[in-house]
Amino acid sequence: MQTIPRYDGYIFDLDGTIYLGDILLPGAAELLHTLRREGRRVTFLSNNPTKTRRQYAERLQRLGIAADEHEIVNSSAVMVEWLLANAPGASLFVVGEAPLIGELEAAGFPLSEKPGEIAFVVASFDRTFTYRKLQIAFDAIRAGARLVATNPDRFCPVPGGGEPDAAAIIAAIEACTDTRCEVIVGKPSPIMARTVTNLIGLPPERCIIVGDRLMTDIAMGVTAGMDTALVLTGDSQRADLERSPYQPTYVLERIDELIGGSGV
Amino acid sequence: MQTIPRYDGYIFDLDGTIYLGDILLPGAAELLHTLRREGRRVTFLSNNPTKTRRQYAERLQRLGIAADEHEIVNSSAVMVEWLLANAPGASLFVVGEAPLIGELEAAGFPLSEKPGEIAFVVASFDRTFTYRKLQIAFDAIRAGARLVATNPDRFCPVPGGGEPDAAAIIAAIEACTDTRCEVIVGKPSPIMARTVTNLIGLPPERCIIVGDRLMTDIAMGVTAGMDTALVLTGDSQRADLERSPYQPTYVLERIDELIGGSGV
Repeated sequence: MQTIPRYDGYIFDLDGTIYLGDILLPGAAELLHTLRREGRRVTFLSNNPTKTRRQYAERLQRLGIAADEHEIVNSSAVMVEWLLANAPGASLFVVGEAPLIGELEAAGFPLSEKPGEIAFVVASFDRTFTYRKLQIAFDAIRAGARLVATNPDRFCPVPGGGEPDAAAIIAAIEACTDTRCEVIVGKPSPIMARTVTNLIGLPPERCIIVGDRLMTDIAMGVTAGMDTALVLTGDSQRADLERSPYQPTYVLERIDELIGGSGV
Repeated sequence: MQTIPRYDGYIFDLDGTIYLGDILLPGAAELLHTLRREGRRVTFLSNNPTKTRRQYAERLQRLGIAADEHEIVNSSAVMVEWLLANAPGASLFVVGEAPLIGELEAAGFPLSEKPGEIAFVVASFDRTFTYRKLQIAFDAIRAGARLVATNPDRFCPVPGGGEPDAAAIIAAIEACTDTRCEVIVGKPSPIMARTVTNLIGLPPERCIIVGDRLMTDIAMGVTAGMDTALVLTGDSQRADLERSPYQPTYVLERIDELIGGSGV
């Protein structure tokens, strides 16, 4: 068995890494408990903008893992930070669900459906998407609005299938307007990596990012200069490593191999 | 002034060529009247699947131009023909508006919203598009359905703006499923060109296609081996010719230059 040193900061993807749907993955509870006891800093990451940070914290707590909402970074939180830094006070049209809209409003951004007033169209995972929203986005962008997005995921896995995610919304708006989305803040964007390292308060070389997706979790960690661990409990199989331009530092069958647990 | 020979068959784009919105373009009525009197065959083309062929004929008649619905070829009619030839009896899920759905039903195709039953997802210009339809398309394609589309247009021009067209619907479905649409039957597809030459009953070299868009009307004519005329009354300006890989046989300020009219 490989020996993995301890890191000062641990950044965990959630779905496929800590839990799968409503089930905690083997070894996750013991791992988190050990890291907490040792005083390691812990952060949880998600590209999903359809739940608030509080909802993620509550979900972890329900599954028996101590977590505070300030330890959660999801793509809507990063979108708020990016807009505060790059376009404070900008008028937004949000193609997204209520939690994202609520977080942007709470951060003081005015919302508008009038194309001439809209400075940014924010595209997102939106199960309430309609043609009317597409029309407003189209008119706004033709009138000069900029297009940004929360996350690049094609679909969100759900038991027995998936739900069309932000990639579909972004593609629809791009196709009719013949423009490209300027910024996608979620994984693997360095914008999300920066938000996480700021939050965790440690330089990248003292952190490890742990996730189940090569093209988001591992890609972001490699690009940000962090060590990385791919867990095989979610989206990726060992065979996927051959095709991947991003290679993790470690490959784990179970997440508790990070603390020497084998479980087998 | 250029001298343009007479052709046996005339294939006209509609919007920007014969009319603009509700206004007949200069010289169009006289041109059509002359061609009819001389016994030339005439066909009208549109990529727009949101109106029936009868509605197009009625619109031309209201504008003072004799036209029968059998002289109209739009992308929904070509979709019906393509499916009859390639997938007779196939079960369809249509992401489109009522006229397209009606034409497919009238041609005998069963419609379904059950992913496992759907053989083809037909993507189209759909101002009634919702996330629910995207979800059904996603589930159907993941279960093995094939993706085809009526037309490739980014947006449909309307007075003072535009409406997101089929390109947005196609892109959304492609992005979440990571598949490519197999067939887009509308202009500039050779499938539409074949439907038109079959209908007009003349070989391509005895026909001319007349339209205002280089990348659809002129591209289709050039590819099909027809002479072509670009009219500058719609989408294209003379400067667009420099960048275009498709060059028309003639460039017209007014459509009646086809019969030696100048109007100026």
